[in-house]
Amino acid sequence: MSQALRLAERGLYTTSPNPRVGCVIVKNNQVIGTGWHERAGLPHAEINALRSAAYEVKNATVYVTLEPCSHYGRTPPCAQALIEAGVAKVVVAMQDPNPLVAGKGIALLQQAGIMAQCGLLAAQARALNIGFVTRMLHQRPWVRLKIATSLDGKTALINGESQWITGEAARMDGHRLRAMSCAVLTGMGTVKRDNPQLSVRLIETTRQPVRIVLDNRLEISPDAKLLQSGRVLIFSAQGDEDKRKAIEEKGACVFILPSTNGKVNLNLMMAKLANLEINEVLVEAGGGLGGALLQAGLVDELFVYLAPCILGSQAQGMLNLPVLTSLANKHNLEFTDFRMVGKDIRVTARIVNTNL
Amino acid sequence: MSQALRLAERGLYTTSPNPRVGCVIVKNNQVIGTGWHERAGLPHAEINALRSAAYEVKNATVYVTLEPCSHYGRTPPCAQALIEAGVAKVVVAMQDPNPLVAGKGIALLQQAGIMAQCGLLAAQARALNIGFVTRMLHQRPWVRLKIATSLDGKTALINGESQWITGEAARMDGHRLRAMSCAVLTGMGTVKRDNPQLSVRLIETTRQPVRIVLDNRLEISPDAKLLQSGRVLIFSAQGDEDKRKAIEEKGACVFILPSTNGKVNLNLMMAKLANLEINEVLVEAGGGLGGALLQAGLVDELFVYLAPCILGSQAQGMLNLPVLTSLANKHNLEFTDFRMVGKDIRVTARIVNTNL
Repeated sequence: MSQALRLAERGLYTTSPNPRVGCVIVKNNQVIGTGWHERAGLPHAEINALRSAAYEVKNATVYVTLEPCSHYGRTPPCAQALIEAGVAKVVVAMQDPNPLVAGKGIALLQQAGIMAQCGLLAAQARALNIGFVTRMLHQRPWVRLKIATSLDGKTALINGESQWITGEAARMDGHRLRAMSCAVLTGMGTVKRDNPQLSVRLIETTRQPVRIVLDNRLEISPDAKLLQSGRVLIFSAQGDEDKRKAIEEKGACVFILPSTNGKVNLNLMMAKLANLEINEVLVEAGGGLGGALLQAGLVDELFVYLAPCILGSQAQGMLNLPVLTSLANKHNLEFTDFRMVGKDIRVTARIVNTNL
Repeated sequence: MSQALRLAERGLYTTSPNPRVGCVIVKNNQVIGTGWHERAGLPHAEINALRSAAYEVKNATVYVTLEPCSHYGRTPPCAQALIEAGVAKVVVAMQDPNPLVAGKGIALLQQAGIMAQCGLLAAQARALNIGFVTRMLHQRPWVRLKIATSLDGKTALINGESQWITGEAARMDGHRLRAMSCAVLTGMGTVKRDNPQLSVRLIETTRQPVRIVLDNRLEISPDAKLLQSGRVLIFSAQGDEDKRKAIEEKGACVFILPSTNGKVNLNLMMAKLANLEINEVLVEAGGGLGGALLQAGLVDELFVYLAPCILGSQAQGMLNLPVLTSLANKHNLEFTDFRMVGKDIRVTARIVNTNL
């Protein structure tokens, strides 16, 4: 199953909106076939493993990181293929959270007389597809917030200068985060100030993430760099038809969503993103949007790159939040990892209380 | 020499104002004596090692982490004792930065026909006595700034609440820092808000650090907790005689120093501390004093405890500094260590540009 998980990881940058899945076929204590899912529309991991098998798979044992599907989606059901291949046993890491499958794949196997069990290295399998799982179970994407900051929590000078606080290695690592995300979300403050592309450039990738701009007043210029290529979604609370058309002519999709005080309802935006099959969102924004998402319980994970410098308390803070009157109400985290990335320290943390 | 350094470390909490020194005597490839310096007034490491020797030390080799002294201080010169003991060779990690010694100890040995060399593991020996070295060479202490902060660089809520942001393990680690320091420095903001004792309580120690308060307007109440026991130094820019007397009656020393805009000249304060034989100062203060010291080039090292929480940009910042107008002028650090301390992450860093 460890090998199957490593195979699944190969799809880290490509399977979206599908989950990353790996499969290993074993017979007489020998691996006779391996496979992984590369991208939506292409064969699932089980099919690739069956096809790769060097020997007859009859009576073999199949290790697969996600429950084989039982329905006709973009491809025929894998459970059926395993039955037809005559395997003896199927070991599954985790049940498919997709309500279209959710146990039916395993049931199908068992009805065909195949020994099928579930739960081996389930936590690892789940972590690998945390976005897919979250979308299936909670109808919203998994949201990561990336922040590049000085050691004293400052992300830009008061004049807006922020390029660059962290080093090249950290920026490259940030592009890896982009590459594994289905979408990168930013706010209009960042678009106005930095005019970013938000694309993956510092590492190789075959798939660019969707770019999303939260643009409450539909202010984005049709000349903005990120509108010049790729898929872009704009979420707004309002906007005249002419402006909307000008933006849509650049190929972007504009969504006007219900709002409060002129600000798009963030929960509805996330639900819409789930609806668009977006599993993992990377937020690269200023303290305004980052803080609003955190406050709404819509940030699941932080990736903070701490640069070896101090900018002082008059520089811009990491996350704008309402005034706290008691430490009991602080936003609690759980550190999950910390490591050097070049000369910077990358700290990752889970948010303890989200709306999940 | 490694063993001698480990012996020297035993004096981490006690030798102040003297340096930590360890000594190992070797004869026929066997360690025949070891010693370390415990506290000022007691014998130096070399003398303890000579006394501990299980065999005749004649023709032995002596490894010592600091150049043997050549002058009569609180104790007679160690170089002379080594000569009288008839050792053949003395290997020294680093020259004594004390201008009263500074090479004279080694010269004395060489004149007596002893092979004496210097430089083995010099960097480690220097690090162990960085405060002593700094005081001898630059007439100021080595200054460490300890900060307990949320991941977003906030050290207190806007209402002042700061107990506790970090966990128990981090606070205990902070007491270890206090125990190894000659003095703990704070400002009047912290005294007014927290009324701290600034003593070592969470770990055992035989020596409490001196407490220092920067109290520009001599506002400290004679009832302040830290005035109730131990040695306290108060630095002020002004203060009437009655107030001064009331404080001095509690056993504290008050120093009135030259000031600018009502604020004590920090360089002069540090020079005075060096004059009082204080090697290592731990600053535990708010962003005001911390920022002023950093700005003056008087902070050498940061100990930042990052707690797994977010307080938001309206909470109080780590270090108050003048507005930066260019990232080129940021205060650069060099990360030297990072580790978990309980549920917090402790990051240590050197300040790249100090006034040294």
